[in-house]
Amino acid sequence: MGAPRFDGPGFRTLNGLLPRRALLRGGLLLASAPAALAQGPGEAGEDLPPWMRSPGAGFSVYGQPGPQAQRVLRRPGANRAAPGNGVAWTPLEQLEGFLTPSGLHFERHHNGVPAIDPAVHTLRIDGAVRRPLDWRLADLLRYPQRSHLGFIECGGNSNAGWNEEPIQRPVGSFHGLISTSEWTGVPLRLLLDEAGVDAQATPWVIAEGADAFAMQASLPLAKLRADGLLALWQNGEPIRPEQGYPMRLILPGWEGVTQVKWLRRLTLSAEPLMARNETSKYTELQPDGRARQFTWAIGVKSLLTTPSHGQRLDARGTYQLSGLAWSGAGRIRKVEVSADGGRRWAEAALDGPVLPRCTTRFRAAWRWDGQPAVLQSRATDETGAVQPSRAALLAARGRNGYFHYHAIVSWGVDEEGAVRHVYV
Amino acid sequence: MGAPRFDGPGFRTLNGLLPRRALLRGGLLLASAPAALAQGPGEAGEDLPPWMRSPGAGFSVYGQPGPQAQRVLRRPGANRAAPGNGVAWTPLEQLEGFLTPSGLHFERHHNGVPAIDPAVHTLRIDGAVRRPLDWRLADLLRYPQRSHLGFIECGGNSNAGWNEEPIQRPVGSFHGLISTSEWTGVPLRLLLDEAGVDAQATPWVIAEGADAFAMQASLPLAKLRADGLLALWQNGEPIRPEQGYPMRLILPGWEGVTQVKWLRRLTLSAEPLMARNETSKYTELQPDGRARQFTWAIGVKSLLTTPSHGQRLDARGTYQLSGLAWSGAGRIRKVEVSADGGRRWAEAALDGPVLPRCTTRFRAAWRWDGQPAVLQSRATDETGAVQPSRAALLAARGRNGYFHYHAIVSWGVDEEGAVRHVYV
Repeated sequence: MGAPRFDGPGFRTLNGLLPRRALLRGGLLLASAPAALAQGPGEAGEDLPPWMRSPGAGFSVYGQPGPQAQRVLRRPGANRAAPGNGVAWTPLEQLEGFLTPSGLHFERHHNGVPAIDPAVHTLRIDGAVRRPLDWRLADLLRYPQRSHLGFIECGGNSNAGWNEEPIQRPVGSFHGLISTSEWTGVPLRLLLDEAGVDAQATPWVIAEGADAFAMQASLPLAKLRADGLLALWQNGEPIRPEQGYPMRLILPGWEGVTQVKWLRRLTLSAEPLMARNETSKYTELQPDGRARQFTWAIGVKSLLTTPSHGQRLDARGTYQLSGLAWSGAGRIRKVEVSADGGRRWAEAALDGPVLPRCTTRFRAAWRWDGQPAVLQSRATDETGAVQPSRAALLAARGRNGYFHYHAIVSWGVDEEGAVRHVYV
Repeated sequence: MGAPRFDGPGFRTLNGLLPRRALLRGGLLLASAPAALAQGPGEAGEDLPPWMRSPGAGFSVYGQPGPQAQRVLRRPGANRAAPGNGVAWTPLEQLEGFLTPSGLHFERHHNGVPAIDPAVHTLRIDGAVRRPLDWRLADLLRYPQRSHLGFIECGGNSNAGWNEEPIQRPVGSFHGLISTSEWTGVPLRLLLDEAGVDAQATPWVIAEGADAFAMQASLPLAKLRADGLLALWQNGEPIRPEQGYPMRLILPGWEGVTQVKWLRRLTLSAEPLMARNETSKYTELQPDGRARQFTWAIGVKSLLTTPSHGQRLDARGTYQLSGLAWSGAGRIRKVEVSADGGRRWAEAALDGPVLPRCTTRFRAAWRWDGQPAVLQSRATDETGAVQPSRAALLAARGRNGYFHYHAIVSWGVDEEGAVRHVYV
């Protein structure tokens, strides 16, 4: 069948990592010769598959994924004592590209998904405002709209990275609390200005959701006015119930807990609320025992989704490395990959569009020689921030952490081609 | 409640169209004062809605839109004599942003949706090649991947525009055979090169689908090699059955009939096939009775989705015009809007990202004074091509047309605020 072209002369290799121009320069020749050839459908010599022999299924009003056996699913992990408190993970290792289908967008709820009547629900802006105001969904449709195509990541995503031993789970069940959508809605600045706010006297906004937990978050007014959205649509259609229908607060690049679903109230305040989910949780316990509060912007981060934990390389040869990179500070500038646990790095190709505060798919080619290897990726964002090694993150943050883990992720490949999560 | 801020001094208006900087400068004050104020959930004076009084629904493995009454749906229109032959329209007037959820991506089938076993299905490249080859889905996963975020539009979309009288239908049931997704898969160039093609001797590729119609299209090899993809994923997950699972040909910017679903074969040929769907259909019958064949690239086009046919303006005041623009030749450079049937134009704001061969959402503010108006949009792409008026399109193409209609769309607003499709 001939050797894969990537193995040909003229390509310098770096511990098996192939130069970027090699990525799309040649194929792999993993095809086989047909058993029989025919000129067209139904002609002699061709055995048509059964699905070409009779008409297929009809049209549908709302499309669904294929049969169960082919379906890619979220993985719920709820608290048994409180079934509406938990998460459902996005199966990152089964996805490609940079978008997440709405049906696979991760879930994080504190007391389940409320069934809201959009004719009754209102958004109220109150507290220290010139005039408190209520808006219904129908009112909001008359306002200017704007879109943000970007990620939402839970501040607790990847928290198993703090464990003493590397957790042995698929990447989606370890890092899958990140998803990417187009969110469209009303710039919050317009609504805040109508209510009349005093940014000097009341720099805080307490956001509250209409779920049974009455989820609350204390947020700086400046962020809401800068790029906050009252989102009404996700990926073009009305937001799904589990993502905040009929309206959700979107704060580009900030951790998920701030992007309050089922938003019902924004209360202007001189002080933060010190609510449960901004004190006992989503904070960073430092080595000295004090907690750092209000770490809102997501740090620069990346990980390989293919190959990743639980997958197996079935033979020596060329493999495509594929992963996601993102930063709450802006665009991804570059992603580097390593096959030797971070000693040597090669630059990956970024698959466009590269958008601010959005996931970016990166790719690189790697030739596995059958020896043990450790695959890693390291992202740099447009501010120059570089994703830290796990050792550097632990040195800076200590051993009490639980939230905001964004260190380099390592996948070990053994001589059998098995891939598992390792620390290096 | 105070007047809408857009009406204040300092804004020059152009037949009610407000300057672009006005778009996000002020609000509309469509809110109302709350009936009662309370400090927090459950405190005296606040009547909590029922969905905050008990835990909500649990987690799900695959998310769905909300209850039926809130759901936005495709509108199938199949041939009664051949139920698998027809279309399902994307309800554009109910969507915002520029993406289409996979469940609402338009459908166009010739003999229904085949139920394909991905373990059996192969893509074959044959005909005038050095060596015919077959690839299974599992083989293809090892190849380099690439994404294209862009639109697919049926060459028959908007064909009611050729009618003598303006059709009275919602915009989605008139122009809704366009949808936008991220498609990810293998660059076709890699597979064609492995089979070994001679671009001089055999400049044509006959693509064939694995549906019961065995849908065929004759395509230039140069386009497949330039940017053709063998797509395996749509919006991150495996392609939906009705969109071509397990693999679909993607040709950025070209009409939908060329982007063969359920792709099973690419046959290299010296000549086009002259198949039914490239001779009797998807061609342009000229004024002199001859047909123009192979008009693949989608022309520059735009339309307003809000307001649009069937909607009603309920009072004088400021409205947000919102629509979509696209071109098969590249990026949208600008979109202009008119409120007087095309005599005067003002530039709309483009809501990013503005990507090549992708839909772009545009927006403008307009103050309705209660008088009759005719709302239009006109797109210009990066090649300088300008969307034609209906009169110009008819003058150039005659009265025999059925495909590739891309003229300016006009929505008439009467004194009652009713919006309907008109010709001007």
